[in-house]
Amino acid sequence: MSEVKIIQVNESVFAQNDKTAALLRERLTGQGTLFLNVMSSPGSGKTTTLVALINRLKDRLSIGEMDVDIESSLDAQRVADRTGIRSLQIHNGGLCHIDADMTARALLEYDTAGLDLLILENIGNLVCPAEFDTGAHKNVTILSVPEGDDKPLKYPLMYQVSDVVLINKIDALDYFDFDTERAKARILALNPRAVFFPISAKTGEGMDALCAWVLREVEAVKAQAR
Amino acid sequence: MSEVKIIQVNESVFAQNDKTAALLRERLTGQGTLFLNVMSSPGSGKTTTLVALINRLKDRLSIGEMDVDIESSLDAQRVADRTGIRSLQIHNGGLCHIDADMTARALLEYDTAGLDLLILENIGNLVCPAEFDTGAHKNVTILSVPEGDDKPLKYPLMYQVSDVVLINKIDALDYFDFDTERAKARILALNPRAVFFPISAKTGEGMDALCAWVLREVEAVKAQAR
Repeated sequence: MSEVKIIQVNESVFAQNDKTAALLRERLTGQGTLFLNVMSSPGSGKTTTLVALINRLKDRLSIGEMDVDIESSLDAQRVADRTGIRSLQIHNGGLCHIDADMTARALLEYDTAGLDLLILENIGNLVCPAEFDTGAHKNVTILSVPEGDDKPLKYPLMYQVSDVVLINKIDALDYFDFDTERAKARILALNPRAVFFPISAKTGEGMDALCAWVLREVEAVKAQAR
Repeated sequence: MSEVKIIQVNESVFAQNDKTAALLRERLTGQGTLFLNVMSSPGSGKTTTLVALINRLKDRLSIGEMDVDIESSLDAQRVADRTGIRSLQIHNGGLCHIDADMTARALLEYDTAGLDLLILENIGNLVCPAEFDTGAHKNVTILSVPEGDDKPLKYPLMYQVSDVVLINKIDALDYFDFDTERAKARILALNPRAVFFPISAKTGEGMDALCAWVLREVEAVKAQAR
């Protein structure tokens, strides 16, 4: 009897997604590209932060960026206009997340060979994006001061899956009732390995430390690729 | 041959939801209870706004409140503690929305007879909640100043389904790059019937006009019930 290949088709959506994500991550590691998935509420400053980050790093790294939105192309256009790098807009057709298959499909049209850093600006949402591994090496979540320090209590999964939390709009700390130490403690209770960078993408405060972290992570991926 | 009842089971999720929502709305109209569904991003001030609204109206109206969250009970507790009214926490098990069936199920455990006003604080999310009619008479969406005036461009469905938009945190207008007229124009392009109330739930600015609107809508529902 000849050997028969058995394909398991009854896996959960999440198990299938995890496999695709692992393959995607492996491919990007192999080519020495760090892949960051950036998540947050709407209006917490994802695009402004990415523009500030990319402009500080673009002379040292080859950077690509992908933006997910329901239907507009505002963010990809902003990133391209304000940084000069190549930016891809992904329209996800009204879904509240992007998964590894969607990311893989987008990468069919976006050549990442030679990139040191690939950034995905996820859709503004604290619920759905947390459920799907996109294939990124690191998940970066932005919590902005005006949102309040209780968000980790209300959207725990998002903070459980975050490697790095950027506390953004710290220039507005005097204006809002936001306790940075309380926010950190709440996140650490969910995820003891979370790393924090308090930043203001607007004034530039804290951006140097964030850039240094990105450069270290790029080197770590390149070390694995070798 | 005896008559056979035919039940259509192949309707879309949304069509089924719309039917349940219509029944729920009809029942609440019949008992003279105005039902408001309050939606927004995380951290835009839903709970603070509702506390401010309820405290201004609770001597004139009998008010009930329901709060949807993934797993915490923070918001219902805050509303109950700060207003003294009866508040129900609904845990939706990690979903990014609440639909009419979930609302109907919650109302099995929450007696609304005699209420003039029932408020649902939806989950903080600009994508999923917009897709599901909850059975509310009016959808109220909060857009807070720190989020930016581009949100209507990025989450159009939310503004298309909103009867009323509260522009919150106007006390912070000097601090953020937010153009109220531009925000309004962008929302009106999606939904020409949208009504606006610029407010600061924190300072109380604009709350009187919002209260007057709620009182008028309560009267409108009671007029239909008679």
